[in-house]
Amino acid sequence: MVKIKFILENKEIYVPRGENLLEAARKSGVIIDAPCNGNLSCGKCKVKIIDGKVDTKKSHHITDEEWNEDYVLACNSKVVEDITVKVPRETFAFMKDVKIDDLSNQKDREIFERAKRQVLNNGMEFKSYVRKDYLEVDTPTLDDNISDWDRIKRHLRNHLGYTHVFCRLPMLRRIPQILRKSDFKVTITHIPRGNGRTTIVNMEKGDTSSRLFGVAIDIGTTSVSACLVDLYNGELLSKASSGNAQIKYGADVINRIIFSTKGDGLEKLNQAIIHETINPLLTKMFKSAQVDKDEVIAFVAAGNTTMAHLLLGVYPDYLRREPYIPAFLRAPFIKASELGIDVNPETFLYIVPSVASYVGGDITAGVLSSGIWASDKNVLFIDLGTNGEIVFGNKDFLMTCACSAGPAFEGGEISCGMRATNGAIDTIKISDKTYEPQFTVIGDENPIGICGSGIIDLISEMMFCGIIDRRGKLNRDLDTHRIRFDEHGMGEYIVVFKDEYELSKDITINEVDIDNFIRAKGAIYSGASVLLSSLGMDFSMLDKVYIAGGIGNSLNIKNSIAIGMLPDIDEDKFMYIGNSSLMGCYLTLMSEDGRHKLEEIANHITYVELSVYSSYMDEFVSACFLPHTNMEKFPTVKQLLKE
Amino acid sequence: MVKIKFILENKEIYVPRGENLLEAARKSGVIIDAPCNGNLSCGKCKVKIIDGKVDTKKSHHITDEEWNEDYVLACNSKVVEDITVKVPRETFAFMKDVKIDDLSNQKDREIFERAKRQVLNNGMEFKSYVRKDYLEVDTPTLDDNISDWDRIKRHLRNHLGYTHVFCRLPMLRRIPQILRKSDFKVTITHIPRGNGRTTIVNMEKGDTSSRLFGVAIDIGTTSVSACLVDLYNGELLSKASSGNAQIKYGADVINRIIFSTKGDGLEKLNQAIIHETINPLLTKMFKSAQVDKDEVIAFVAAGNTTMAHLLLGVYPDYLRREPYIPAFLRAPFIKASELGIDVNPETFLYIVPSVASYVGGDITAGVLSSGIWASDKNVLFIDLGTNGEIVFGNKDFLMTCACSAGPAFEGGEISCGMRATNGAIDTIKISDKTYEPQFTVIGDENPIGICGSGIIDLISEMMFCGIIDRRGKLNRDLDTHRIRFDEHGMGEYIVVFKDEYELSKDITINEVDIDNFIRAKGAIYSGASVLLSSLGMDFSMLDKVYIAGGIGNSLNIKNSIAIGMLPDIDEDKFMYIGNSSLMGCYLTLMSEDGRHKLEEIANHITYVELSVYSSYMDEFVSACFLPHTNMEKFPTVKQLLKE
Repeated sequence: MVKIKFILENKEIYVPRGENLLEAARKSGVIIDAPCNGNLSCGKCKVKIIDGKVDTKKSHHITDEEWNEDYVLACNSKVVEDITVKVPRETFAFMKDVKIDDLSNQKDREIFERAKRQVLNNGMEFKSYVRKDYLEVDTPTLDDNISDWDRIKRHLRNHLGYTHVFCRLPMLRRIPQILRKSDFKVTITHIPRGNGRTTIVNMEKGDTSSRLFGVAIDIGTTSVSACLVDLYNGELLSKASSGNAQIKYGADVINRIIFSTKGDGLEKLNQAIIHETINPLLTKMFKSAQVDKDEVIAFVAAGNTTMAHLLLGVYPDYLRREPYIPAFLRAPFIKASELGIDVNPETFLYIVPSVASYVGGDITAGVLSSGIWASDKNVLFIDLGTNGEIVFGNKDFLMTCACSAGPAFEGGEISCGMRATNGAIDTIKISDKTYEPQFTVIGDENPIGICGSGIIDLISEMMFCGIIDRRGKLNRDLDTHRIRFDEHGMGEYIVVFKDEYELSKDITINEVDIDNFIRAKGAIYSGASVLLSSLGMDFSMLDKVYIAGGIGNSLNIKNSIAIGMLPDIDEDKFMYIGNSSLMGCYLTLMSEDGRHKLEEIANHITYVELSVYSSYMDEFVSACFLPHTNMEKFPTVKQLLKE
Repeated sequence: MVKIKFILENKEIYVPRGENLLEAARKSGVIIDAPCNGNLSCGKCKVKIIDGKVDTKKSHHITDEEWNEDYVLACNSKVVEDITVKVPRETFAFMKDVKIDDLSNQKDREIFERAKRQVLNNGMEFKSYVRKDYLEVDTPTLDDNISDWDRIKRHLRNHLGYTHVFCRLPMLRRIPQILRKSDFKVTITHIPRGNGRTTIVNMEKGDTSSRLFGVAIDIGTTSVSACLVDLYNGELLSKASSGNAQIKYGADVINRIIFSTKGDGLEKLNQAIIHETINPLLTKMFKSAQVDKDEVIAFVAAGNTTMAHLLLGVYPDYLRREPYIPAFLRAPFIKASELGIDVNPETFLYIVPSVASYVGGDITAGVLSSGIWASDKNVLFIDLGTNGEIVFGNKDFLMTCACSAGPAFEGGEISCGMRATNGAIDTIKISDKTYEPQFTVIGDENPIGICGSGIIDLISEMMFCGIIDRRGKLNRDLDTHRIRFDEHGMGEYIVVFKDEYELSKDITINEVDIDNFIRAKGAIYSGASVLLSSLGMDFSMLDKVYIAGGIGNSLNIKNSIAIGMLPDIDEDKFMYIGNSSLMGCYLTLMSEDGRHKLEEIANHITYVELSVYSSYMDEFVSACFLPHTNMEKFPTVKQLLKE
């Protein structure tokens, strides 16, 4: 056996000589980002060997300078003696940390208020399906000696009109002692079902009827976002996000599904989302809002169809095998605690229904909060997630399709990419004279990476400055220290030199990153284009375009058009609506009417399979250009490039 | 640390020097019967020290002969050096072993058929609430790519008319693979609820629709009995009984409740009934009938109110504290697997509702299977259990009371007592010339103890032969080797000398045993008497008396009257109806109508608290005689004694 010490994490593990370093890190709980799951293609699992040697080979992901500083790819290294390893901060900053959002952010508040209006302005009310009531129950005597449970039922019948009251065993077990500890003055949490029926799901000592909380959560392939809500008034008490810890097993749903079929892969993925992602996120939110986990009694989650399968631990492999069959679109009745989610054991977990194998509940929820379903205008809705999904429609019809974009919009598979949270460069300008960048960082912190909106700006600016050509290749003839090439000839543009902010490496974008991003934006553009043309329409007929996803509030529409991610139509038609899935979960949590509308949306939306359109592949290839092979589709960009 | 070796069980355990031997045995999983839970009163935990010495004291439960042979009370012994211990076969035979009943026993069959008629002859049908259906589901294609779950729902809607189909997560998780392993030909088990609604609880490969099984179980304070049933036709496939492993923590409900309040006592009691009693019982039954546990999909249990609390792990202490409040009478919806009961994870456990703190679901079930509720005659129903419960009534009304009899009827707190199973002496005659006994043994095996019916015969015969007087004291003047006295002057009658059957000790009944039994029968008689007189009635007004309980099929009515357990009325009015609680569970399992009737019984039966009648204590004292202090109440016995 040999010893590995992870210096930053302060963890030690003994492994058999010859163990793969990435595997060893996973076993010890040290998270190393490895979107390609160890097949040498992404280069993200770069670590520094501080002490000792590993059996490794140099790859094109390692620069000469890095090689000299003992950087290796963990996936490509065997541990042959005792070593000390440093996992660079940037490697996991992207994914691991839970970030609590600043609730006072004005743009976030506007997005939130807009989402609320989609329910409140459309004749639906905010009313949670969970209630609390404070009871002063008669104390038992020899003459009034009915059982504790019958006593509670009698009280509810006589005072609140419930004729059929239910509970489950864990609740029953707590009743005798709670009643007596509180002198028969208790607050019940219950779920009325009409016709005098209700189910008691919690009982607390004394009067706690003012405290009733719920959680809404969006489970993305790359990022997970959640908010904690006061169920009485809908107030946001905390909002947070983190990476999806499943990333270490694969960057996209296909890689995850493949991983799920191997050994205990499904269990590992299930544990990763619940115990390594959701629970740490909840813990931080509850702490920040001073809410006890047992006070959280409603829970709504949305994710793509694969995420829903992995969340429930349902074997997803048939999703990726023809004829692409999900086990379910609508999840059964389930308690969050059945999955190990750390809230009140009786909390019901509502999972937003999916539409198809590759259009999940996140889109159903997104459609709800976007308000397309109530619009008399033609709206295009684009969710810039790892699974890029597109919805087109209005109050009369809804069509949807999926185009696998990959994780680039959330910073995945981009060497310095990260989520749109504190430390992320979110806007960039480059001088066309000096090629020097100017940027802003979310939270006004030191930069540690670049989020989606920053990458869009960066690519657009580089194009306009002539740093890259329309294929995304770096100009080899420019005289600037911002551009360099490695021994394989791959070029990169340096946004931040490491010495400027004491980083362990420069923040750069290289040609592979640019290529990844171009393919992501190409998938979105071509998907939208084919969806519309399948209806005999084109972009000119759009009245509104809603952009959703974790790309960042600072999304620059002009630049998004410039790189050909969005169609070249009037800028005023676009609106960034943030994490529309999370907002849809919030509305479902707060409003039973909202939930009914959601179910109706899931039932009525029509799924369009892009791959059956022969034009799709051509469209995609044409869109993998900046902005497009056919410049006539982007007249304003053509004009700008001329200038 | 010192080592204890249990020679018969082939177990070794290391304990700290000074450890109590009974505690050490419990820790090592060796069961030593200790109904008084170690307070030196019952003398049941007698063990033989084969090797080594313990720190102990002689008690009146240990004879001089036993003392010389190194018998000690485990509860009264400290382990101070390495020892080897033999736990006498008789000590645990009484309680531990699971016995499979002989289904061909004619008397058992008659009792069973009689119980069935109570439902079938009263306009109710045998129809289980669980169904199985074999489905040949359409296989998915690219054109028909709905989810697995939607596919099953579609099939059930189109072929069986179910419009609302539900399942729970564990079921959902199994669907994708079962469907594909079976080529989409599966058998579902489901629970229809009317109005097109049903819940799928199991799915099996291929056509298994002919196999659908259920379990009925009676959980007594002393004994537990169960049967495995074919839910299609009600056929009994196996029937078995065992002791309630909770006995080691106390013989009666009060001692168990006290134990439950100490440390993890409640958990221990819950584990004892589920993992040490019910699961071993099920395992043996399933094996004997060649049924897989996953095929068992319905489960009905009955027990007294305390047993129901301990089964569910609900704190029972308020049952024994004024004003004697149970946590519940009706249990919530629960799955057997939630408790760790080893059947199909989706099997619903129906617990028969209790009537009051000391009249449990076993009585509700007993009333159902006895048929009192349908009778136009006045019926007295006596359940000879540890909690002796009595019901009086007819089709118009039902009254009930409880009189704590103790475990004597099932052989508890009787030194050679045991359940009415193989090896139990069940009938005894004694020659009034030679005082020699003649007896029969259940299963024609060698005798190992005496069951309730045998003890009744024994006491009655000893009384008529003049071996004991009417207080139950042995005649000191008889010249027979069958009677002996220890150094404290306590007498005993020897039914079987140990050498006759290679037993480790004689099978005897002593004056303490007789006294225990007299108090038990006195509690029953006086309880029935007070219940009737509270209605202004007496025994002469009875048309029928049903005797239920584990006392044994060979119950001799004449002898039961002779000792004053039953009232001195026409013998033809009595009928032994066996374990009426188990039969009631069986009927509930087989018939939804039966279950509704059961609920009706639980709702309408009136509980009478005997302790509020000032006459009760006098009646009890008078009944603690053979047959009674007032011989005028027993004219036929008076006549026989004269003869």
